[in-house]
Amino acid sequence: MKKCGKRTIIFENRPSVLGYASVVGKKEHEGPLSEEFDFYTEDSFFGEKTFEKAESKLQKTAVKIALEKARLDEKDIDNIFAGDLLNQCIGSSFGLKEFGIPFIGLYGACSTMSLSAGLAALFVDSGAAAHTVAVTSSHFCSAERQYRFPLNYGSQRTPTAQWTVTGSGALVLGKGEGKPYINSVTFGEIADYGIKDTNNMGAAMAPAAADTLLHFFSDTGTKAENYDIIFTGDLGYVGTNLLYELLEKEKTDIRCRHSDCGLIIFDREKQDVHAGASGCGCSASVLCSYILHRIEKGDFKNILFMSTGALLSPTSSFQGSSIPGIAHLLNIKKD
Amino acid sequence: MKKCGKRTIIFENRPSVLGYASVVGKKEHEGPLSEEFDFYTEDSFFGEKTFEKAESKLQKTAVKIALEKARLDEKDIDNIFAGDLLNQCIGSSFGLKEFGIPFIGLYGACSTMSLSAGLAALFVDSGAAAHTVAVTSSHFCSAERQYRFPLNYGSQRTPTAQWTVTGSGALVLGKGEGKPYINSVTFGEIADYGIKDTNNMGAAMAPAAADTLLHFFSDTGTKAENYDIIFTGDLGYVGTNLLYELLEKEKTDIRCRHSDCGLIIFDREKQDVHAGASGCGCSASVLCSYILHRIEKGDFKNILFMSTGALLSPTSSFQGSSIPGIAHLLNIKKD
Repeated sequence: MKKCGKRTIIFENRPSVLGYASVVGKKEHEGPLSEEFDFYTEDSFFGEKTFEKAESKLQKTAVKIALEKARLDEKDIDNIFAGDLLNQCIGSSFGLKEFGIPFIGLYGACSTMSLSAGLAALFVDSGAAAHTVAVTSSHFCSAERQYRFPLNYGSQRTPTAQWTVTGSGALVLGKGEGKPYINSVTFGEIADYGIKDTNNMGAAMAPAAADTLLHFFSDTGTKAENYDIIFTGDLGYVGTNLLYELLEKEKTDIRCRHSDCGLIIFDREKQDVHAGASGCGCSASVLCSYILHRIEKGDFKNILFMSTGALLSPTSSFQGSSIPGIAHLLNIKKD
Repeated sequence: MKKCGKRTIIFENRPSVLGYASVVGKKEHEGPLSEEFDFYTEDSFFGEKTFEKAESKLQKTAVKIALEKARLDEKDIDNIFAGDLLNQCIGSSFGLKEFGIPFIGLYGACSTMSLSAGLAALFVDSGAAAHTVAVTSSHFCSAERQYRFPLNYGSQRTPTAQWTVTGSGALVLGKGEGKPYINSVTFGEIADYGIKDTNNMGAAMAPAAADTLLHFFSDTGTKAENYDIIFTGDLGYVGTNLLYELLEKEKTDIRCRHSDCGLIIFDREKQDVHAGASGCGCSASVLCSYILHRIEKGDFKNILFMSTGALLSPTSSFQGSSIPGIAHLLNIKKD
């Protein structure tokens, strides 16, 4: 690999996507990407006794299907990179413990898919690993209980609020020919513009998204027009418009090439999700279904994928702190 | 770098410790390692309004001192690797956001020091980064409130309970001559022996420690006698004895070469810490003071350092789940 500019790491050995899978809940299955997902469950509990255990099962199921599609066994995997939104990331640790794969636990909030895939690609590219897995998840019910209110309260949601995706996405990476591959990763810094409204995650994450994207363009000497499409993770309607405004100040326009996973997984009007979707599982399940399907079909040959995260906790918000955001960016290609 | 055996990654470009620092609280300063730490605060709040903000300040202070000692500026650092025990790792995100360094958030519970340092070394060794920082922290008061009871309850502690260290340790890594360097990393898998007692973390972590250490010995064809000393992170009295028992079953004896950071940072008898110390800050502050001082002086030339973590959350325990453990191992050398 080689460093390009200040922040971008370009891979030279084509860490490729050997397998990928997405597992979602009922509402996601009823959305516009319905046919894209590998598996869905009608049951919020996914046959388990708690929402947290259901979330673990989402990850476990996604990894199993991705391994099958890659025709690999868990014994073939050197490292698994995972994290989620639950306190102490129990979605990942309990979901993945049975695999017996050396585990690298991450916390990047909703940026986890590009964080985990970036690290997993770096391990493959450097020779530290032959095969790696990157996975993350979120669950509407476990997230609502932990970050907001128990569902039973029937709380009203603000117009800027986003709907946490119940879903997981898993990637299996290794060296391979003719597959989609991760060409580069740009890890982002924490950006904090002082947003304190915990019902407006899009606004808290947009500055980080702008910062990472501008660093990437500057590092590589490219612009939006050089890519077929630029996916952000879960900025939603509010965050997307803020991203456009922030980029405009830097004379950068991505409107014609931009899509946000949080705006395509649900039908905002029919599915009552307010400003869009969110959660680690949002960009993960869209990457590991719709996006990689389009890349495999040749519709996209050269894309940017940037998951965005809000690094708050209920405690930090109760203590009056603002919401720091972060975004990590992957350049994914297929010849 | 090159893979050695199933799990061990051997570095070939000597990712070296250019600077390191430890920052602790009053009780740690009153313990046997008192003179080893760079900085201590008498005040549990460290001049802040909450324990969580105090914990963030521990990390920020440790990173600042480590950078000064390395004669580097935050602008020289390509990536910072950090995590902590607080929900959503706010100790790290709020403590480090001002540095403007691309941030790789981790969750490894008390294994975070060897997890972060292992990844930081891998980035330097592979050429992904010129300089990296690895840092973590814990705080007795924020941990008690989150995992157990508010301090004001004055709850009694069981004999197997451990005392969370208030402290942080930070390492600055880069290529360098004549410095201590990280020779290899062995990332561990999640081990779960069904322990459910949340007041007995040592027992929950010992199986993971045994598993990672045995993998390392098998990968490298070495045994305890090949190393000057083997440090575990925070197994405490109970976990240490369990580790000896588990290793004995595999005909491995490390007693004569073993030390546990959780048993040396406090005076167990005088300081009333029951089974010993724990927390991400335990192995971090001991590594970044006592251990690296001894290595620099030439007392130790070839050591193993293995932080151990318990991947539980209060939610998983309330739901009756057992406590999964993890351990990551570094081989640190100096010529």
